Amino acid sequence: MSAVPKQMLHEAVTAKKASIQPFTASEKIYAQGTSPDIRVPFRKVTQSDTPASFGAEKNPPLFIYDTSGPYTDPKVSIDLRLGLPALREPWIEARGDTVRLTGPSSSYGHERQHDPKLAEMRFEHIRSPRRAKPGANVSQMHYAKQGIITPEMEFIAIRESQKLAEASEIYNFQHPGESFGAAIPKIITPEFVRDEVARGRAIIPNNINHPESEPMIIGRNFLVKINCNLGNSAVTSSIEEEVEKMLWSIRWGGDTVMDLSTGKNIHETREWIIRNSPVPIGTVPIYQALEKVNGKAEELTWEIFRDTLIEQAEQGVDYFTIHAGVRLAHIPLSAKRVTGIVSRGGSIMAKWCLAHHKESFLYTHFEETCEIMKAYDVAFSLGDGLRPGSIADANDEAQFAELRTLGELTKIAWKHDVQTMIEGPGHVPMHMIKANMDEQLKHCDEAPFYTLGPLTTDIAPGYDHITSAIGAAMIGWYGTAMLCYVTPKEHLGLPNKQDVRDGIIAYKIAAHAADLAKGHPGAQARDNALSKARFEFRWQDQFNLSLDPEKALEFHDETLPQEGAKQAHFCSMCGPHFCSMRITQDVRDYAKAHQLSETEALEKGMEEMSEEFVKHGAEIYQKV
Amino acid sequence: MSAVPKQMLHEAVTAKKASIQPFTASEKIYAQGTSPDIRVPFRKVTQSDTPASFGAEKNPPLFIYDTSGPYTDPKVSIDLRLGLPALREPWIEARGDTVRLTGPSSSYGHERQHDPKLAEMRFEHIRSPRRAKPGANVSQMHYAKQGIITPEMEFIAIRESQKLAEASEIYNFQHPGESFGAAIPKIITPEFVRDEVARGRAIIPNNINHPESEPMIIGRNFLVKINCNLGNSAVTSSIEEEVEKMLWSIRWGGDTVMDLSTGKNIHETREWIIRNSPVPIGTVPIYQALEKVNGKAEELTWEIFRDTLIEQAEQGVDYFTIHAGVRLAHIPLSAKRVTGIVSRGGSIMAKWCLAHHKESFLYTHFEETCEIMKAYDVAFSLGDGLRPGSIADANDEAQFAELRTLGELTKIAWKHDVQTMIEGPGHVPMHMIKANMDEQLKHCDEAPFYTLGPLTTDIAPGYDHITSAIGAAMIGWYGTAMLCYVTPKEHLGLPNKQDVRDGIIAYKIAAHAADLAKGHPGAQARDNALSKARFEFRWQDQFNLSLDPEKALEFHDETLPQEGAKQAHFCSMCGPHFCSMRITQDVRDYAKAHQLSETEALEKGMEEMSEEFVKHGAEIYQKV
Repeated sequence: MSAVPKQMLHEAVTAKKASIQPFTASEKIYAQGTSPDIRVPFRKVTQSDTPASFGAEKNPPLFIYDTSGPYTDPKVSIDLRLGLPALREPWIEARGDTVRLTGPSSSYGHERQHDPKLAEMRFEHIRSPRRAKPGANVSQMHYAKQGIITPEMEFIAIRESQKLAEASEIYNFQHPGESFGAAIPKIITPEFVRDEVARGRAIIPNNINHPESEPMIIGRNFLVKINCNLGNSAVTSSIEEEVEKMLWSIRWGGDTVMDLSTGKNIHETREWIIRNSPVPIGTVPIYQALEKVNGKAEELTWEIFRDTLIEQAEQGVDYFTIHAGVRLAHIPLSAKRVTGIVSRGGSIMAKWCLAHHKESFLYTHFEETCEIMKAYDVAFSLGDGLRPGSIADANDEAQFAELRTLGELTKIAWKHDVQTMIEGPGHVPMHMIKANMDEQLKHCDEAPFYTLGPLTTDIAPGYDHITSAIGAAMIGWYGTAMLCYVTPKEHLGLPNKQDVRDGIIAYKIAAHAADLAKGHPGAQARDNALSKARFEFRWQDQFNLSLDPEKALEFHDETLPQEGAKQAHFCSMCGPHFCSMRITQDVRDYAKAHQLSETEALEKGMEEMSEEFVKHGAEIYQKV
Repeated sequence: MSAVPKQMLHEAVTAKKASIQPFTASEKIYAQGTSPDIRVPFRKVTQSDTPASFGAEKNPPLFIYDTSGPYTDPKVSIDLRLGLPALREPWIEARGDTVRLTGPSSSYGHERQHDPKLAEMRFEHIRSPRRAKPGANVSQMHYAKQGIITPEMEFIAIRESQKLAEASEIYNFQHPGESFGAAIPKIITPEFVRDEVARGRAIIPNNINHPESEPMIIGRNFLVKINCNLGNSAVTSSIEEEVEKMLWSIRWGGDTVMDLSTGKNIHETREWIIRNSPVPIGTVPIYQALEKVNGKAEELTWEIFRDTLIEQAEQGVDYFTIHAGVRLAHIPLSAKRVTGIVSRGGSIMAKWCLAHHKESFLYTHFEETCEIMKAYDVAFSLGDGLRPGSIADANDEAQFAELRTLGELTKIAWKHDVQTMIEGPGHVPMHMIKANMDEQLKHCDEAPFYTLGPLTTDIAPGYDHITSAIGAAMIGWYGTAMLCYVTPKEHLGLPNKQDVRDGIIAYKIAAHAADLAKGHPGAQARDNALSKARFEFRWQDQFNLSLDPEKALEFHDETLPQEGAKQAHFCSMCGPHFCSMRITQDVRDYAKAHQLSETEALEKGMEEMSEEFVKHGAEIYQKV
């Protein structure tokens, strides 16, 4: 990849308006918390009125959880060269437990920052990194355990309580009104957020060096989240493409983004991404460490890895996937598998362990890693390096031995108040999915689960967003907190923008289906609003309320492109002469005319009604 | 729609080679039963050898259930104007319980056949219909209850026992070798097929007037099947398109096809489809009956409906969706719903019931309908006219009241030995899906369930093949026998060919995921073969074994188009320098070289191995 002049990068990305345009009938609004700088974004979707033939009523706006950051706020001017405003900066500053360094404290970070050859591609306005004061622990878990409600926690409480945004555009959490119900309270309060984080059942990935991020939470008593991967590889892609993919991901609803770059200049690419990302960024640091030893896994050392952790923590990475559960003794368990070790991180460490005949340095240095994590509030995403890569290998001893180790490491991380989630499979047939969740809850003591799919069959390359959305929806229902998306290109190639969009929508579906099945408060409001719009032939509202308004409109117009068809009280399925949606309205109309409830209408005066209906109904159907 | 000259139709459809070309590395083979005319088709997929670096071995061919009929057999010459060979004709003839009529016995069928204006579009070689001899019952259920194993049942036993085709290309069911295991026997025998049909737990839709069809079975102890809908509407589409869509559907794996046409000339369109279809055809006769009364539901009569049943039965329709469970008393139960009545058939009947204030004639004439069904062996698909059209309406009293009525009707149908399946929802959130299956099994006494999805959320128009594939996979696992596909255009417009393909593949995934989860014998063989090919970098085999070989190849080539990349031992995800798939092979190679099992290798001589590995491994990685 050649260097991209910064001006060109900015222009190329911002010229692609599609990624940063608000959706139709949508407006960015903010619900304010206890202080003016707690401003929680929502997408307010305005609806049209119910047509007269369906009873003429106002339809309230719907408030949708919004991952797209300031990009969809026309009042904010964006310059990728400057990065996003550092909204969390005052909160971090106010806690007084961090220091501003004079520059990167990792040797690699220092070297890259001072290499004149990189000036052309380097993000211009790099901040000096922050670090915890000596002895301090700046993790949200640490604050939570001490009973402190941080502004981040309050922000999240407002963000997760979509119903509140509905009630008032200015949310005031001091009058939450309702008390806790079952496991998931009807209204998410800041106290509940704190409790869940303190308990380890949820994490808030927000590195103190990524103050641009809008706080979000990952835990099974909250909305199910999705992660999108991006990243260049040795084969293809550039900084420009990666920044653009990040913008594209958050537009469609990505809650976090993992940068899995493996090519050159990944340090610089990452800086551009983080500075412009309103969502938490995750990485797999061993990928970059491997680049530093020219791809020779056996030459990896703890020192190189450690420097990489610090380098990335100081750039602002919010969570690290670390495959510390791939222990030497687990590796032989994978030998008889159909597809062996399919995790890249897992196989790097397997190679290292075999080459040195030593326990993994990720495992032996785990407590030192915790020390780094808590100095920046980076969360662990404990990687499942031995996840099954095929149906045949699902739920085998290699996988579960590693999971038990991850449980052991979770407790060590928690001892350090380091936020931790656990990664999960992979390829698992439906009837074996629940065991994954049960084992994870048991061994990892309810730390959030973060799964890749799982894919429920191996036979559909080209459609693995679907094979895996099935498993993802199910495991989300069972309690997985975040779903790592899979694109249609899985197993075949690198996703382009269309693949990213397809993967995200499939996973938004899975996550939302899981929220519905879990009975998450407020989740069904969007289904109900959309279905009501559908029933009342409010086509434009139906499009606007959908996960992908542009696709819905495009598909509708393929069959009935005329503008009038979007006001029509019929659709292309049945044509204008008979429409099933009309019947219920006929029943209701009749009941209303007779001042009866619909059920009474039918029970009481069926005979009379039938005569009326023939006249009345015939008229209605001629009108169409 | 204007008339299409037959020559033009034939040429237009056959020119679209894509629908009728065999897939790469695939060959049509036939497993022979006890008589030479029982020839059961399979798609034999040849695999290449494992490369030397992975242990050089032969990989056996895989035999795949094949719905594509003679179209993919290069030895058969196809002329759409003649229709397919009538393979079941001798079996029907041999039973001696039918008569050949001199012409259609329905008045509408007679009229259409003799209308000179239709000559141009009429299928030329219409056979005179068959009907049961007076007093005879020609249903497969009737034979089954008498202990008769029909050639259809034997055909199905071979077809469902994919493992047998693997063992030998000529199957001889007289040596099945294995005895029954659990609910699903390891090998499906003709006796098992008979027992399941006699019990009502499975149906074989094959009208005596559709002798071109290759027998297949729908029941929860068999492979999960999928149905594809096609049909013109008042708005769009022609005979040519519909025949082409049928060919396209069976190419991708549609097990049955429903012709839901609502426009003009549906009689003629249907004849063309049936004469050329190797899979069972279903219809919703009330749609055509409604056309006959110019769309005025209140003008429908039992006589018009009855004539339509006979008309279609004599053309060869294999199953009828009949919404006989929409009783007058159920209609008010739908009044409070968010989306009322969304089934077209259900709303037609609701309108009729309201207009006449009478019980549905489908319900009151049900036994007369049974008499027609058993004279041609048409199976019931008892329609769920009150299925929920939104998450808000799922599992409500309207839906379950109708289901209980369907259970009552099932018993009446069985009294007449009429094969019966039950249609199911619709829109249902995940946690409410299982109750649908449980209630259906309970009230309908294990008659096969045939569901539309269910869609697990309402918020993704444009992606309802995915929202519903999630529900379909789950309900298939729970015991649904056939899944009615949903295309991405659902709720938005009429599907084009690409939508049909997307819908089918999503449903093949759901059905196969369900087969895996149910532990259907042999189902995992394809996953294992594909995963082994993937692991060994046999790219072409991976494509050939997948549900959509063309898409897999196309996606691969988008990133790495060079021909060499399809032999390469790496892929675009990690690039050539480090590949996780290699590690397991390194472990295995080492073990082999030392005459040890892999596990022993690691347990015994780790120290020695580590030294070796550095040398050995370094070498391997330089080679790449």
